[in-house]
Amino acid sequence: QSPPWGRGAGTAAEVEAFMWADTQSSAKRAALFSPADRVLVKVQDLTPDKADQLIWLRARVHTSRAKGKQCFLVLRQQQFNVQALVAVGDRASKQMVKFAANINKESIVDVEAVVRKVEQKIESCSQQDVELHMERIFVISQAEPRLPLQLEDAVRPDGEGEEVRRNGGGGTPHRKCIITTGDTPGQAVFRLQSGVCQLFRDTLINKGFVEIQTPKIISAASEGGANVFTVSYFKTSAYLAQSPQLYKQMCICADFDKVFCVGPVFRAEDSNTHRHLTEFVGLDIEMAFNYHYHEVIDSITDTMVQIFKGLRDNFQTEIQTVNKQYPSEPFKFLEPTLRLEYTEGVAMLREAGVEMGDEDDLRSEPEPWDHFYVLDKYPLAVRPFYTMPDPNNPKYSNSYDMFMRGEEILSGAQRIHDAQLLTERAQHHQIDLEKIKAYIDSFRYGAPPHGGGGIGLERVCMLYLGLHNVRQTSMFPRDPKRLTP
Amino acid sequence: QSPPWGRGAGTAAEVEAFMWADTQSSAKRAALFSPADRVLVKVQDLTPDKADQLIWLRARVHTSRAKGKQCFLVLRQQQFNVQALVAVGDRASKQMVKFAANINKESIVDVEAVVRKVEQKIESCSQQDVELHMERIFVISQAEPRLPLQLEDAVRPDGEGEEVRRNGGGGTPHRKCIITTGDTPGQAVFRLQSGVCQLFRDTLINKGFVEIQTPKIISAASEGGANVFTVSYFKTSAYLAQSPQLYKQMCICADFDKVFCVGPVFRAEDSNTHRHLTEFVGLDIEMAFNYHYHEVIDSITDTMVQIFKGLRDNFQTEIQTVNKQYPSEPFKFLEPTLRLEYTEGVAMLREAGVEMGDEDDLRSEPEPWDHFYVLDKYPLAVRPFYTMPDPNNPKYSNSYDMFMRGEEILSGAQRIHDAQLLTERAQHHQIDLEKIKAYIDSFRYGAPPHGGGGIGLERVCMLYLGLHNVRQTSMFPRDPKRLTP
Repeated sequence: QSPPWGRGAGTAAEVEAFMWADTQSSAKRAALFSPADRVLVKVQDLTPDKADQLIWLRARVHTSRAKGKQCFLVLRQQQFNVQALVAVGDRASKQMVKFAANINKESIVDVEAVVRKVEQKIESCSQQDVELHMERIFVISQAEPRLPLQLEDAVRPDGEGEEVRRNGGGGTPHRKCIITTGDTPGQAVFRLQSGVCQLFRDTLINKGFVEIQTPKIISAASEGGANVFTVSYFKTSAYLAQSPQLYKQMCICADFDKVFCVGPVFRAEDSNTHRHLTEFVGLDIEMAFNYHYHEVIDSITDTMVQIFKGLRDNFQTEIQTVNKQYPSEPFKFLEPTLRLEYTEGVAMLREAGVEMGDEDDLRSEPEPWDHFYVLDKYPLAVRPFYTMPDPNNPKYSNSYDMFMRGEEILSGAQRIHDAQLLTERAQHHQIDLEKIKAYIDSFRYGAPPHGGGGIGLERVCMLYLGLHNVRQTSMFPRDPKRLTP
Repeated sequence: QSPPWGRGAGTAAEVEAFMWADTQSSAKRAALFSPADRVLVKVQDLTPDKADQLIWLRARVHTSRAKGKQCFLVLRQQQFNVQALVAVGDRASKQMVKFAANINKESIVDVEAVVRKVEQKIESCSQQDVELHMERIFVISQAEPRLPLQLEDAVRPDGEGEEVRRNGGGGTPHRKCIITTGDTPGQAVFRLQSGVCQLFRDTLINKGFVEIQTPKIISAASEGGANVFTVSYFKTSAYLAQSPQLYKQMCICADFDKVFCVGPVFRAEDSNTHRHLTEFVGLDIEMAFNYHYHEVIDSITDTMVQIFKGLRDNFQTEIQTVNKQYPSEPFKFLEPTLRLEYTEGVAMLREAGVEMGDEDDLRSEPEPWDHFYVLDKYPLAVRPFYTMPDPNNPKYSNSYDMFMRGEEILSGAQRIHDAQLLTERAQHHQIDLEKIKAYIDSFRYGAPPHGGGGIGLERVCMLYLGLHNVRQTSMFPRDPKRLTP
């Protein structure tokens, strides 16, 4: 059966559909030229080999400057831009130059233009060797004349954009739009973040892991009940999951062997720091191991190393865009990853003059070793109740944190897989056994030794890029004082 | 700097760590054999070419049968299993046979055994040509003697497992564990689901899409306020996002051009049907287009076709495992995808005797056409306020649904990208403009024509496999009456 429509036929009437919302009559006229057959060129492809060709282009008006009988526009697509001009003469009327000069900045336009080589490089544009001589201009979407934030301010290291970015995008969506637009680091950060997720998943799928989806609305707060958001759920109430812990462990008990998940994690902590969010993206891993929980550490550190390598090899443009505004030392890592025991770490810090007790939680310390390392064997007292004790020294545990540039990005451990020991440890932590009954019962029907960890996506991106606030790597950050946009 | 530990050195003390929780003294003894140097064989690799080799294996005790001086176990790893026996004689004592016979079903064991070819195929096992002659057995994790559900019942089409699966896993995690274990379809369904996610993302990344992360806790219900869950948020209240709609559109306004996201979506609808969940996984797409919203439909249908091909080519084992218990016709699809206009669909249904009005919502109809098709140009009245009207007929809209086996899996449209028209349409729907101000303002600074859609992961898996309840393809389903496990 052949489809009853012509693919890409693009009659004038069909094409007009997207113009419906445009108030510019020029836009409506554009529809009559059957643009479905029109090829739109990318700004980044405008090079001298296209010289003297007549091309079509859709872009934003980045800047606009009228000068006598000429009008100069800079047209932008993401981080790429090109100079375009229209001058009164054979091919353009006085009215057209005036029309061009009156287009508001940030408007989206379609232009037909001839590509011309220039004698002198245009230093202010990414396309330095050509300019466009416009013959037709249509406004596709007109921006309002007053912008909530000037792009020039957004990219200035000490400008308003800086303040906005550091604090998570200001209060309004359009400010956020503007600062993630064009040649600001916003696009680069979030393209790199997309890369982190893909590298994480690809590496694990290659290692035989299975992706799972875990529920976010749960009936009981599995980790004891503190710092949990409450949801009204029909005639009862429920909670938002603080981690996929219980669910990934259930999958291990169900013989999935190795699982991962990527999803939101919710923490009702009233922490207003550079590294805390109330909602963040968790990259979670859980796996059965054969003989030693260091098999888990090795899997996780290798995954991180694959991410670091993938970013280094495939995201240099993004890294350099961010570095231009926020200089930092390139991220460095060893192979295999440096792994120290907690007590060694404490000894090294004491040597460096830091005072701390044997069982203090060692986190967020300055960076004495490397940009990526593991601290192993934390004191049992500072870890959750389901952490496996160290059989050789019950003051310590088979648990670990991973650090990037001296800040914690992952917390993990071998988990207790025996219901009886788990009950004892929960009692020791004075946790109400009734509330975690379902969790403990999961281990009554044969559970393999297993361990895992959870990584905060925003922290990984922040620290890889050497940024200083997790709000810079969260597109729509949530903290105790911020719920919008 | 060389790491201060020996990788894989596996001293007896280290190895003992994971045994800590085991009460079986045999397990503790196992630790003394330095098992870190031991290679564990996979059940699926036990073939005649391993005949007469001494191997180590970790597996679950699937069944156990003592018979005079012999004990037969079936050992299982996921969907693979093998027969293993121990008999009183030179290499095994009477005590050892008794020990083996007393191991509870579903316990996890390490065995040392010689692989032997068998004369007659063992029909009840996946490994039909060999059996294991066990020399040593250690219990790694002992299951409780009474299981909450027998695996045999779980796999019987009319058994308890069937009821449990159809209704979403019963009330307890261990029942859920058991039914997703071993040779039941559970493992297969969720491995295929993992594949759907990866195929979706890989296809879109190849097409130049960027993955974004959108917040789930939001300050205002962007779609008008019905069917939304409320969250207590410190001293105020917030909502759970019903879709990433606003956020993916903001990314388009911020020139990301093409974006997708995978994440939970929450609907406080009191719908108790085979196809509704209160929390499900949304696969969402949004993209700018050049001249016609059919560019968006083409991108989405091609993505779906890539998913269908990837499943067909790489997940046959999983599909057949599910089909064994739930027979269904293999999923069929055309290239290019069949696209009909809504009015054509109505006409065809009327011809088939179905009574309906011109503007009734056409969903969940029986399957007159194909396993995958698109219905285009829905009546404007049945679509959300932000849907672009059809410029040629204001009773209709530039919107579409996609169907698998006659059930809706995606709803999408060209979106209004002009603040003024959006305001008019919201007023027409009597939506409080104050509540959606941030959303409308997003379009005031230049917005490209764009469209997209949202797919329900669980529905796609259910309908691809020809299953009949979305709870069968949700590991931990949530509906108005179910919040656990």
